[in-house]
This record gives sequence, structure tokens and C-alpha cells, in this order.
Amino acid sequence: MTGGISVAEYLFRRLRKAGLNAVHGVPGDYNLRLLDYVIPSGLEWIGNCNELNAGYATDGYARIKGIGAIVTTFGVGELSAINAIAGAYAEMAPVVHIVGTPPQNDQKNGTKLHHSFCRGMPGDFKIFAEMYEKVTVAQEDITDVANAAAQIDRVIRECLRQSRPVYLQVPMDMVDAIIPGTPLAQALEVTPASGDPRVEQDVCDIILDRLRTSERQFILVDAGTSRYGLSGQTDVLIRATGFPTATTPFGKGIIDETLPNFHGIHGTVGPHTFTSYVDSCDLIINIGPAHSNVNTYYFATVPKPEITIAIERDAITIGGRTWSVSPQRILQMVLETLKENPLPKPASYPELPNLRHALQSLPPNDPTAKLTQDTFWYRMSSFFHEGDIILTETGTASNGSRDFVLPKNTTLINSGIWLSIGYMLAATQGAALAQRHLAQSNDHPLSKGRTILFEGDGSFQMTAQELSTIIRQKLDVIIFIINNNGYTIERLIHGPQESYNDVASWRFLEAPSFFGAGKADTDYPVYTARATNWGELEGVLGREEMRAGKGLRMVELIMDVMDSNDTLRLMLELWKSKKAS
Amino acid sequence: MTGGISVAEYLFRRLRKAGLNAVHGVPGDYNLRLLDYVIPSGLEWIGNCNELNAGYATDGYARIKGIGAIVTTFGVGELSAINAIAGAYAEMAPVVHIVGTPPQNDQKNGTKLHHSFCRGMPGDFKIFAEMYEKVTVAQEDITDVANAAAQIDRVIRECLRQSRPVYLQVPMDMVDAIIPGTPLAQALEVTPASGDPRVEQDVCDIILDRLRTSERQFILVDAGTSRYGLSGQTDVLIRATGFPTATTPFGKGIIDETLPNFHGIHGTVGPHTFTSYVDSCDLIINIGPAHSNVNTYYFATVPKPEITIAIERDAITIGGRTWSVSPQRILQMVLETLKENPLPKPASYPELPNLRHALQSLPPNDPTAKLTQDTFWYRMSSFFHEGDIILTETGTASNGSRDFVLPKNTTLINSGIWLSIGYMLAATQGAALAQRHLAQSNDHPLSKGRTILFEGDGSFQMTAQELSTIIRQKLDVIIFIINNNGYTIERLIHGPQESYNDVASWRFLEAPSFFGAGKADTDYPVYTARATNWGELEGVLGREEMRAGKGLRMVELIMDVMDSNDTLRLMLELWKSKKAS
Repeated sequence: MTGGISVAEYLFRRLRKAGLNAVHGVPGDYNLRLLDYVIPSGLEWIGNCNELNAGYATDGYARIKGIGAIVTTFGVGELSAINAIAGAYAEMAPVVHIVGTPPQNDQKNGTKLHHSFCRGMPGDFKIFAEMYEKVTVAQEDITDVANAAAQIDRVIRECLRQSRPVYLQVPMDMVDAIIPGTPLAQALEVTPASGDPRVEQDVCDIILDRLRTSERQFILVDAGTSRYGLSGQTDVLIRATGFPTATTPFGKGIIDETLPNFHGIHGTVGPHTFTSYVDSCDLIINIGPAHSNVNTYYFATVPKPEITIAIERDAITIGGRTWSVSPQRILQMVLETLKENPLPKPASYPELPNLRHALQSLPPNDPTAKLTQDTFWYRMSSFFHEGDIILTETGTASNGSRDFVLPKNTTLINSGIWLSIGYMLAATQGAALAQRHLAQSNDHPLSKGRTILFEGDGSFQMTAQELSTIIRQKLDVIIFIINNNGYTIERLIHGPQESYNDVASWRFLEAPSFFGAGKADTDYPVYTARATNWGELEGVLGREEMRAGKGLRMVELIMDVMDSNDTLRLMLELWKSKKAS
Repeated sequence: MTGGISVAEYLFRRLRKAGLNAVHGVPGDYNLRLLDYVIPSGLEWIGNCNELNAGYATDGYARIKGIGAIVTTFGVGELSAINAIAGAYAEMAPVVHIVGTPPQNDQKNGTKLHHSFCRGMPGDFKIFAEMYEKVTVAQEDITDVANAAAQIDRVIRECLRQSRPVYLQVPMDMVDAIIPGTPLAQALEVTPASGDPRVEQDVCDIILDRLRTSERQFILVDAGTSRYGLSGQTDVLIRATGFPTATTPFGKGIIDETLPNFHGIHGTVGPHTFTSYVDSCDLIINIGPAHSNVNTYYFATVPKPEITIAIERDAITIGGRTWSVSPQRILQMVLETLKENPLPKPASYPELPNLRHALQSLPPNDPTAKLTQDTFWYRMSSFFHEGDIILTETGTASNGSRDFVLPKNTTLINSGIWLSIGYMLAATQGAALAQRHLAQSNDHPLSKGRTILFEGDGSFQMTAQELSTIIRQKLDVIIFIINNNGYTIERLIHGPQESYNDVASWRFLEAPSFFGAGKADTDYPVYTARATNWGELEGVLGREEMRAGKGLRMVELIMDVMDSNDTLRLMLELWKSKKAS
């Protein structure tokens, strides 16, 4: 066939055109031929230490780059990764999971192959795909050349459109099969189709009417905002309306926190809450809601439907009534109208918390006093600068990040639904790689910053070996390990003294050497430090390696076994009371 | 309720009575209350670094101790472990997987809880259990006190009876619910029910007739032998008949290799094959067949049905006809008859390979010559002694173990179906713990030996952190890490020069220190060494720490990137030719 290309090349070139620069995964005998096509298609291959970590890394990459891809082998590989893919589903990361499967003849014959249950039935080759139907939004198995290109295009399109994982099986005998390459000339169409113009105008008019007639307004930005491609329009809306704005915990880092009408996280416990204001509102614009118990202070911050405009992925709900429309198109119409006919200057609203002022008024700390989480997270804010990607692992770190006061053009990666500890170190590998790729290809606002991880000791132990991938790929990463001798967040929930909440005592700062960092590698410098008090921490943070350096920088922070910030303690008390009721 | 006990205590006490001494797992907020009952029920709690590793460790423990149990949390925890449970299913390890789930009210209401997909539907709490239906042989969800004890008893009984994993969900609100403890007074009945005595007599007679009338016989012992509780009877049968006997690769280590009629592994490639003899047989007794491509030299060693007595878990197939009978009962009848009426001295059979002689006739090696796998595995045989548990990871190690010549009363753990690399290090933690427990409770033949692991660098990286659990539990383990710079078995299959088969370069011998081993801990000594040639290896193996010592002993073996034994090379060539055809 003239101009034909192999299925594998089509797949990887399509992913390349969709914005991917690297494929993560683990080799296995059913996928080796697939992997032959990765580098020739213009992609890097990132071999992770195991498949779960590869899945997490791909998710982290996808959150920054807009698409990620992982290749695993049939059975053992895909099952090892399934928790990561389920997490990408729950938290809406656009991940393409490609599985190299046995030859079709063997599948049809039920051949008793390794990595299967060897029961001698064709069904042995279906059960893992059936599991994946539950955790992905589109699935395809490449079985013939006539449909292969359309199947590949469909899953990648759904991945991008829904910002959720998809699943693609490529049997070994289809890898090299030749298909027409012509569809590659066309970019995948992922912009939403236009809907009924009258309906769209109606929805736009209702929203504008609510904006103009309401008296007390509030914009609540949640995680869906970035997943649905609404970050830019949300930024314009916040500026154009001047309405007081906050994020959910899971939505933090999506919007510009230096805006005067930004007021932190909308919560019900801890300092800096302003629930009485929100309760008095007659309009809440809730963008990209991602309700979960932990993201809503056990549902206390879910806006009342009757006063809410909820902007979902493919729908807008106003006062409880839902229209299936493209939020992007509606927001575009709304913002264009506001540009021509701005709102009257919004009624001044009562004074709401200003975290930047609170930060500036923190009393100086005693350099000899031990580090405590009550102010640690606030104080870390002054370490951040524009372009930083900050990752906070589930536990005290993620909860602590609610106190961050972020500069412009920073991104926070945390978990608001799935909360699978261990995710964040591997995601850091993916995010740091994505940041490097952003720097190579354009002048992206995140390309000039650092990748900074905050993680506890228990979480670190889950996926520790992925530090070696960070080292092997010479990724520039700063890691703060909070060593508080176990699963502190679990202790706060139940069993503070129980041994099951302990973890092994590692010598964390020996990690770079163990995982292979060159001891005199000027190309990839390694800096390690330990801080137990504020003075030591300040000394570390002031170093040039930490402020602007390259390579791996790893700081062990010694904290008390039961230490957390107030917000977390109060939130868990709230939660326990809910569970008890 | 007088004499009542909590659901959790019932569960753990039932497991204790079934032979369990330790529960593996990872704490999570939905299972913390469950964990409160582990230690009070007379069990140890082994907190692993992550759930996949916990699953592997439980499997390794179960293979030695006859039962294992893992506790994970709902969603993230159970999905992380699912590959290990699927492996236990494929390879028949008796593992009880206990999942702590959210309160039933939240499940019924579809509450948007963390670790779920937060779609607001009750189905959010079903999907992971639906996945587990595919990889376990029995499942229960404790929903009321009336049935709880029977549900717990049923899954544990099925686990023991089928030697395969089972799945038990315990909602948080059921953990402390009080149920009658009286059933605990009765042991679980797992011996097979007696069948129709006439059918049993018929099958016994047919078998005896085949034993007496056949002229060339062969006994082929496979992995099911130990899983179905047939090891003891098989040993008697081999001695009583004197028939030439071999194992499959997956069945290796089950029978006494010092018997004169033991002739190694039945394979079709490599030295020491004897296919022409097997082809000439008119009777093959195939005990516990576990056919997979890798266990049968791509199905070349599957016995011809017309001459075979195949002894399965719940059936015996003779000449292609299957009877649903208890093999244990039939074998008992056969062996009793043979005791009274022994077979005439079997016709002498042609000389078959004697590995022990082959081992003794190996030429002495050049101490300065680098280590090579052609004779490495043979030579390691002299290091083993009675009571050893030897684990060989999938890859060159597992294939190399086919060359081992094992002393009496040793056990080999390898993988013959699932082949999930990374399994073996965590399984070593479980096996070493089980060995310690055997030593505490009785005079088990394995209680006096060592736990010895052979593993490649790529596999080690998958689950490396579980070394810290070995250290934390002060388990006595010897680890040989074959450092050959990547996935050598994959290189032999495809892409010998491809970068995707490389792994990161770790400083493996720094592992004990990084993972927290005490540097001057006389209670748990650590010995590390590296060997690149035969002389160095001999020096290491001769040390007292290695022969009889305690603690962690870790030896890095430097081998060539493409080095393997001949059998593996030839087997992969055979396999590639099958795939190409």
C-alpha cells in the first residue's frame, strides 16, 4: 500500500501530533515490538521502575502537558497500573493506556499463555479489558487494518475531549500491520460541536441576567475548570466581574492568586474562612465542580443549587435546571457581551480574608524552634516563584497546601478525590519532564519555574524507586520529605499510638546515592539537607541550589509525629462526627 | 449477646485457627478499625510499603504457611493489590484479601467519598468488587450480623479448599458489630467429601491396572501437586513405584530430588533432556498439571492424553476420560493397595540424566574467570542445604533454577504462569516470615533452613522498598542480585540493544543502609558483598554469615548483559518460532 505506515507508527505519530513528547511505561514481551516505534516517531521513552509508578508519572505528565501515554504489557502490566488509571479517571487526567497483547490467534484459541489464567478459553484474554471498561471512557482493540486508524483516533479524541483515560489494546500481530497514514494529515477535532444557537443564546442571557441582577456574588473555582479547558475564560470572568473568588482545595492553583478579589480557599473550618459571606450570597458561579467529601469539607461548601450557576464539562446548570451546552461556547458569548457592556462596578463586598496580608503579618519565628505545620505551609509560600509546579501529596502536605499563597503562573498538583498515596513522587517525575518539554517547545508560563514536591515519609516509601527515574532522566526537582515517623494523617483519624501507623525508618537522604545519582556529576548536581528548626530551614531555602539551581535537591524536614495544621485537625474532627452520625 | 465477639475479632481468630500467624497490608482510613483487632487476635501485623508488595508478600507467605491474609483499604488499596491477587489466582496461592470499605449507609446513598469515583451513585461502591470477582474464587460483603460468621467461614474454607484467593469486604460499621463466637469452636472442614464408593473403587482399579500392565512409565510432577495437598502421597507413589520421575519447571522443588529415580526437569531443549524416553512411554502419571507455554516448552511436554493419568484438583482424567473424584482419596486407596500388593520390581529403564552426577563432574572453574550463567546455577546447588526456601525471580533466575540440584526438604518458589516481575522480593519477605513462624510452632522440615532469593536488577527495582520490611521485621534472608544492566530476558526475546530494555544504575549494596538497617545492630547483622568472578563468589559463599548466619546478606553478582544459560536461549528460540508460525 503506497504511503502506508504501521499501526504502531500511526499510533505514536498521532500521539505526537496531539502534543505528547514522551511515552512512559515498562517493557514486557507482549509490547516490545510496539516500543520499537516510540523513538522513531519522535517521542522519548521513559522506562519506569514499575507499572503503577508509570501510570502515576503519566498522569502527572498529562496534567501539565495536556496528554500522557503509558505502555504496559498484557495482564501483569496493565493490572499493576490499574489503580493509577482509576485515579486518572476519578481526577480527570487525559491518559492513553496502550497495552501490548498476545497474537490474536492465541487469544482466539485460548492458548495457555503466561500473564493469563491459562484456563484454555478465549475469555482468559478478555477479563482485564473488562476491568478497564470500568476505569476508562473509551476502549478499542486493534483487530483489523480497515478500522485501526479510526479506532486510534477515536480513543485519543475521547481522551482529550473528556480529559479522562482511555484504553487501547494492540495485539502483537497488529503492531507492524500497514494502514493508510493519510488521516494523520488532519488534526483531531476536539472542540465541541456548536449547539442550537437559540438555546445557547437563552443560556447566555440567563447568565448575564443573573450577573447583572444579583447583589452578592461569589465565584468558586474547582478542579474541573482546568480539566474542561476553562482556565483562561475563568480568569477573564474573575477580572471582568470583580466578584469575590475562591477555590476549593482541589481547585487550588488554577487561578491567579494575586488578583485583589481572590480570597483563598472556601472552607468551613480553620482560619480565613468566610462562610457567612457565602451564605449571604444570591449568586454563586461554581466552575468545574468536583464534589467529594474531602474537597467540600464533608459537603458543607457545596453551593445551594437555587442560587448557583454550575459550569460542568458538557452542561450548565442554573438554579437546578440543566442545559446540555458547551460551557466554552457559552462562556465565550458571556465574556464577549461583558466586554462590550461591562457590569456596573460591583457593589463593594465586605472585607474577606486576604492571605497575602496574613502572610506578611506572620510574626518572625524563633530560629531555634522546631518546625511545626501551623505556620510551615504559610511560610513556604515565600519560597515559590512564577512558573513553579508545586505538588503536595495526600496527607498533611496536601492539607497544608491549602495555606499556600501562590505567585502568578504557578500550578499546584494535589489530589481531591482519589487520594492514592505514593502518587505524588511518580507524578513529580512526569510533571518535571512535562515542564522540560514545555520549555523546549514554547514560551509557556510554567517553563521557567521549578518542580517542587512536598511528601510525607509513608507516601515516599510507596513509590520511592521512581526517584531513580528522576535521576536517570536528569530531571530538575526539589523534594521536601516530611519525616514524621509514619502515617500522621491516619494517626489523626484513628489509632494515634497504634503500630500499624508506623513506617520503617529509612535514611532518606541516602536515596540519591542509592538510586544512582553521580557523586561528582556536574551535569546533574545533587544537594541534600536536613532541617529540624526554622533557622536550618531558612538556611536551606536561601541557598542558590534551592532558589534557582538544577538537578536533584532533597530536603528532609523533621516534624513531630502528630503535628499538622489546624485546618486538617478541625476537618478530621468534622469528618469523624459525620461518620459517627 | 452473651459470648458474642466482634465481626473483626471473629475474622482474625478464624484466620489464626486456620494456621495464619501474620496479616500483611497497608493501613487506610477505611480499614483502621479492622486493624485494631489484628494483634489482640494473636496475629502479627506486617505493614508493607505498598499494597502490591503486600499482596506479593502474602502470596509468598501463603505458599509456605498454607494460608495468607492481606488487608487493604477500599478503592486505591485494593486496586493497587489486584495484580498480586490475580497472580495468586493464576498460581494457586491461598490468600484471603480483606478490604475495609466505607459505611454501608454511605454506600447505599452513593455518597461522594474519597477513594471512589464520586459520581454520586451506589454503583461507585460496586465496581472494584466486580473486578475482584474475576480474580478470586469466593467473595463476600459483610452486611448483617446474622450471616457474618457463615460468610467469613465460607470464604476462608474456599480459599483453603481451592488454594486460590478470596475476597472479603468489611464495611466500617460492621467491624465492631457483635456476632456469636460459637462457630469458632469448630475447625473449618476442608477435607473433600467422600464420593460414590463404587466410582472411587473403579477409578482406583483402573489406575492400579495401568500401573501393573504398562511397560514404560513416567511420573511428571507439576505445580498443582503442592497446591492440591498431594505432595506427601506423590512422594510415596514415586518411592513405591520406582518409576522414573521428573518435574515441570513450575513443579520443581515439590519432590525429593535425592531419590534415585528422580531425573530433573522434563524439557525439550538444553542439556539433560530425555524426550525420547518419554515419547516411548505407555503410561505418564501427570500430577497437578499446570500447563502454560513457559511451563511446557510451548506445550511440547504436555503428555499425550491417551497414555496419561492426569491428577487434577477435583478430578482424575485417564486416557481422556474424566472422573469427578477426590484425588486425595483415590491416591490413598491406590497407595494402600500398593502397600499390601507391591508392584513387581519395575522393568529397568534406560539410563536417564542424573543431575547430581553431572554436577559432581563439572570441571573446576577458573577463579579469575567472570561469572557466567552456563554453569552458575549448577554450581549454586552446593550452597543449598536441607530446610532452605529458595526463590528465583522470573527471568534468567527462574530459568536458571531449572539447573539446580536440590537437597531433601527444600522448597523452590518460582513463577510458572503469571510471571509478574517484582513478585519475588516481596514474596521473599512473606516466605522468610512464614519460615520463622514454622520454626516457632513445630518441627517443620523447612524450619531449620534459610530463605534465599535470586533476582535480577530490573525485577529488584520494581518492588525494592520491600527490603525495608525485611529489615524492619529482622527477617533472615540471603539475596543474590544479578546485576546485568537491564531486562536481559526481554533482550533475549526482542531488542537486545534497545534502550527500553535498560534500567537505571543503582548502587544496590547501599540498599540495607538506605532502607534503615542498623549499622552496628548485632541483633540484626548485615553483610554485603560483590562478586564478578568465580573466585570472589567462592569466597563469599564460604563465609560463615552466608552458610549459617542470621540477618540480611546481600550479594551483587556482576554478569554480562546478554548472559543466560543455554536452556533459556534455546527455549526462547523455540518460542519465537512458535509465535512466528
